[in-house]
Amino acid sequence: MIIRRIQVTPVAFRDPPLLNAAGVHEPWALRTIVEVVTDEDLTGLGETYGDLRHLAKVRECADALIGLDVHALNEMYARVAATIGTPLTSPPGPAPEDGRPEAPSRGKPAGDATRNPHGKPAGMTTKEKAVDRVFSPFEVACLDIRGKAAGVPVSDLLGGRVRDAVPYSAYLFYKWAGHPGEEPDRFGAALDEAGVVRQAKLLIDEYGFQSIKLKGGVYPPDQEISAIRALHEAFPGVPLRLDPNAAWTVETSIRVGRELDGALQYLEDPTPGIEGMGEVAAAVPMPLATNMCVVAPEHFPPAMAARSIGVLLLDHHYWGGLVRSSHVAAMCDAFGLSTSMHSNSHLGISLAAMTHLAAATPNLTFACDTHTPWQDGQDVVAPGALRFENGSVPVPTAPGLGVELDRDALAVMNEQYEKCGIRKRDDTSYMRRFAPSFTAERPRW
Amino acid sequence: MIIRRIQVTPVAFRDPPLLNAAGVHEPWALRTIVEVVTDEDLTGLGETYGDLRHLAKVRECADALIGLDVHALNEMYARVAATIGTPLTSPPGPAPEDGRPEAPSRGKPAGDATRNPHGKPAGMTTKEKAVDRVFSPFEVACLDIRGKAAGVPVSDLLGGRVRDAVPYSAYLFYKWAGHPGEEPDRFGAALDEAGVVRQAKLLIDEYGFQSIKLKGGVYPPDQEISAIRALHEAFPGVPLRLDPNAAWTVETSIRVGRELDGALQYLEDPTPGIEGMGEVAAAVPMPLATNMCVVAPEHFPPAMAARSIGVLLLDHHYWGGLVRSSHVAAMCDAFGLSTSMHSNSHLGISLAAMTHLAAATPNLTFACDTHTPWQDGQDVVAPGALRFENGSVPVPTAPGLGVELDRDALAVMNEQYEKCGIRKRDDTSYMRRFAPSFTAERPRW
Repeated sequence: MIIRRIQVTPVAFRDPPLLNAAGVHEPWALRTIVEVVTDEDLTGLGETYGDLRHLAKVRECADALIGLDVHALNEMYARVAATIGTPLTSPPGPAPEDGRPEAPSRGKPAGDATRNPHGKPAGMTTKEKAVDRVFSPFEVACLDIRGKAAGVPVSDLLGGRVRDAVPYSAYLFYKWAGHPGEEPDRFGAALDEAGVVRQAKLLIDEYGFQSIKLKGGVYPPDQEISAIRALHEAFPGVPLRLDPNAAWTVETSIRVGRELDGALQYLEDPTPGIEGMGEVAAAVPMPLATNMCVVAPEHFPPAMAARSIGVLLLDHHYWGGLVRSSHVAAMCDAFGLSTSMHSNSHLGISLAAMTHLAAATPNLTFACDTHTPWQDGQDVVAPGALRFENGSVPVPTAPGLGVELDRDALAVMNEQYEKCGIRKRDDTSYMRRFAPSFTAERPRW
Repeated sequence: MIIRRIQVTPVAFRDPPLLNAAGVHEPWALRTIVEVVTDEDLTGLGETYGDLRHLAKVRECADALIGLDVHALNEMYARVAATIGTPLTSPPGPAPEDGRPEAPSRGKPAGDATRNPHGKPAGMTTKEKAVDRVFSPFEVACLDIRGKAAGVPVSDLLGGRVRDAVPYSAYLFYKWAGHPGEEPDRFGAALDEAGVVRQAKLLIDEYGFQSIKLKGGVYPPDQEISAIRALHEAFPGVPLRLDPNAAWTVETSIRVGRELDGALQYLEDPTPGIEGMGEVAAAVPMPLATNMCVVAPEHFPPAMAARSIGVLLLDHHYWGGLVRSSHVAAMCDAFGLSTSMHSNSHLGISLAAMTHLAAATPNLTFACDTHTPWQDGQDVVAPGALRFENGSVPVPTAPGLGVELDRDALAVMNEQYEKCGIRKRDDTSYMRRFAPSFTAERPRW
């Protein structure tokens, strides 16, 4: 099954003004849709970030993969690395800036993450996160093709599903009623605990979610503590999580963690960096989760040494696809970590891929994050394949990912991309248009 | 592709009197051959240890897997765990005894390996090595079937080969000329450095090996240092390794390691336990390798904390099959470890599986171990599919493992099993028949 053609299509879809520590979501969210076509005319789908620099890399790599067999994932990975010119050892440096889809980590650099704890053996490489990010949509598309060819769902290529439906959480955001200058959207404002509880009710009514995550780092910590307490009261027994995206100092994180004892299932990325997270983890009663301080394999050694986290959020978009995410889950298991799943704004191809991965990951023991409610029906996949039942997505059992492109929708969304004028996610600049003194510097409190 | 039938056949084949720290190989080596047959009459092959207790577990689990799809590896693993009654947390305790095929680790227990470094997260399990060992041949057989169905070699199911041929090392043993009471075998005696060099020449002449491993722990360390020096002189530039199977104290290990500076590519398991290995690793110039102190995922955290090793020897027979071995290789990569491959006495099904795994593992940067020369042409697979060229096995490109059973040979070897009287490997008792005062206690020097 040789790759004959790869189609790369940027798309844009409406996104509500969701607030976070980096600023606020712009009116359009970007994604890139990848279609891989084989010599036998089987098509596989992948989905990834949509910012221009990433899109250019994906396009460049697409050309380099023509002629490869869909099984040749190691060779594919090597060609992606070679094409984007990744050095064997990543230079230490700051993490990419906030609010950009290229940056799964919105925090500080992961500390001495590139340090190698075992000086002697030969043949070591340090992976650049960019390779994993660019490789991912091609890998997903190839697994889609292999599943179709074998007549089995992608979850079967990852070890087989251990659950028939994958639980997701209600992903709450503080938000404005609508984008400035526009009518309020149907979700309305959520600027205090009453608004947050109202939003939770809406999402739970519509999707049946059985756990709740609140994106924090927007208001001073005491306000967010109040919001969690309000949710705890309004939804007794429903597991809650808070994610301030590293907006707090170590001291603040410890104070908040202790005050929320008994109210949080886990606390996600309260403070920047592996060392800081380790200090917080040692002092608070609940596990810490991350999608910021451990976002590449080389972050594991220092994070395990610092005992920074108890839960790792998987995300196949930056962990190098589904198989490499399975490796990461196995590594978590060896180190006694649980896993959950991170989400950026995404469409149905990614939701399908996330669901297959989660279904086949035994130690994924928490409900996954998803932005699906915020895309509010907009999608590039044909309706019907994916649905929420009691907050869970039944794992597609059709061959491959189990979703098909809606070409009309794809064309519309591509046109939206062409017209929307946004070429990279930049929550911070968008926020500054309305609050010129806004700064995304962290820790803020 | 539903599993309809599983055939489990114990076999025995002649084994020379190879000396090691546990004693000496008995005249017959045991293996178990597993054939998995689907509803579409596709057959997959697996090979595992042959001792009676293990064989009984494999048979019991075979019954429990009937009706499963060959993709359902997670469910298969869970059923194996349930069938052999594995507790969720392994009790700390001594490693299985020396010289038994159930015991990939021939050393002391791995220390506080079951300690969990992250107390908080829920959902953690500690795996019992027995599950991985029993699961492995079924997994390999299912991958064989899936490769055949998809028309691709097993290496393609593991990410695709990154090398077309897999280098193996000349695996030297001190040995008697023949088993007591029998004629000398064609390999002759190797009881000193001259014998070891002669044996190396023979194996290199016949197989073209380009690196050399000496099984040590047999004679006082200075004699084995002399043997390595003799090999270094006789084969200048050929990478050398020494594996005394934890026969030495920390002090002795450090002394030997320093004396062999410049002569060894790596030193394998000089001393027992994760802590002891860490002390040695910090003091010797070459990396340490292991198949003794890190033999299950839960050994990683303490071994990484103690910086015990630079090279992990993969072995799909006890790491839970090929996919789980890929996970382990990825974990090694994250922690800056290189990988090589361990071997017990084995036949061609295992050689094929090892070769596919090694071919698809980018960070397997050392020549693999194999006992193939010592089986000296005896095999259950039909000739022709596997061969050595310049010390390497070209990766089979036929669908699946690329090997087929020779049913006549299987029948002969099964008859040998029935007649040979050996039901578990016990190098120590066999040695004591000729050297009653022999003790396998370690460290010995």
